[in-house]
Amino acid sequence: MESIKLSTSKRIDLLDITAEVSRAVTKNKIHDGICIIFCPHTTAGLTINENADPAVKQDIINALNKLIPVSAGYAHAEGNSDSHIKSSLFGPSLTVLVENGKLALGTWQGLYFCESDGPRNREVWVKVIKNHA
Amino acid sequence: MESIKLSTSKRIDLLDITAEVSRAVTKNKIHDGICIIFCPHTTAGLTINENADPAVKQDIINALNKLIPVSAGYAHAEGNSDSHIKSSLFGPSLTVLVENGKLALGTWQGLYFCESDGPRNREVWVKVIKNHA
Amino acid sequence: MESIKLSTSKRIDLLDITAEVSRAVTKNKIHDGICIIFCPHTTAGLTINENADPAVKQDIINALNKLIPVSAGYAHAEGNSDSHIKSSLFGPSLTVLVENGKLALGTWQGLYFCESDGPRNREVWVKVIKNHA
Repeated sequence: MESIKLSTSKRIDLLDITAEVSRAVTKNKIHDGICIIFCPHTTAGLTINENADPAVKQDIINALNKLIPVSAGYAHAEGNSDSHIKSSLFGPSLTVLVENGKLALGTWQGLYFCESDGPRNREVWVKVIKNHA
Repeated sequence: MESIKLSTSKRIDLLDITAEVSRAVTKNKIHDGICIIFCPHTTAGLTINENADPAVKQDIINALNKLIPVSAGYAHAEGNSDSHIKSSLFGPSLTVLVENGKLALGTWQGLYFCESDGPRNREVWVKVIKNHA
Repeated sequence: MESIKLSTSKRIDLLDITAEVSRAVTKNKIHDGICIIFCPHTTAGLTINENADPAVKQDIINALNKLIPVSAGYAHAEGNSDSHIKSSLFGPSLTVLVENGKLALGTWQGLYFCESDGPRNREVWVKVIKNHA
């Protein structure tokens, strides 16, 4: 596997990691397969969404904060219960097809690291599995 | 990969795509492996849920609309911010086991394309990876 | 595939299945690959989250119950519409990397079976795909 190092600057943020993951895929020189992206943290997750209008990213963050408020009488004493819950809503991993040696994404799709308890130094793990049909 | 073409008729709907994905898997003639289903759109997602009582589908749609209302002062100007957020909640991909040449699903499970910004012409990508143990 | 049998004791609960899945992976003797964990039920799901402080688990359950109340005028007559919706929010499958013959998880990560309509006898399916690079 490959580890991509990330550094987040806000408590809650979406970081576009499409370029970093694409580079890891290209390096592998696998023409046809799948790429698994895994987040080894419990207060961050991964998603795929629009990477054109930055307002989409802001709307996603605002909606997450409305659904899972930062403070809501949580039992966990570290002040990041909301971050744990948010990370489970989006999930810890993504699987993307690899076609012609590249990540196969829709026109408007980008891969996002969803930080919910930053700022922190983070990493994302990437592995490409070859299709031996 | 295989592309399955879909046509949706409502703004928000769940389309049962189990038969289409099953056909793509059977065609591949892979006895033992995994099947990845990927949605290349940013205002639609994928999920697995009950395919017996249609009321479940309606309850899921109503719950999504309560959690993420169509209008809620979003920043994104295209009128489909709710659709982007809904697609991230369910996620862009599914991984299902392939056993004896078929999708291995529980008794009540069906695969759903979750349209959140229809009606539109859509597609879903399918790839089967063989288990060379 | 391998089937892991589970027995849940509450209507809504998170069961740590990390040890059971890890055993299934070790048994396979695959050094480098991916592990897919699949839930064949429509009123349960899977997630990865913190396995240190049990308060996190309780906060996740409480937040799910706030987002998707047990009773909310649902159409489905079996009294478990909330369970179906909850299962789609977390999703039916997980993909985890296998490195050096073991599940590759972050320091604080555990795998959870998310029961939403217990108590019941359940199962979880596990398959390991080898990386033939």
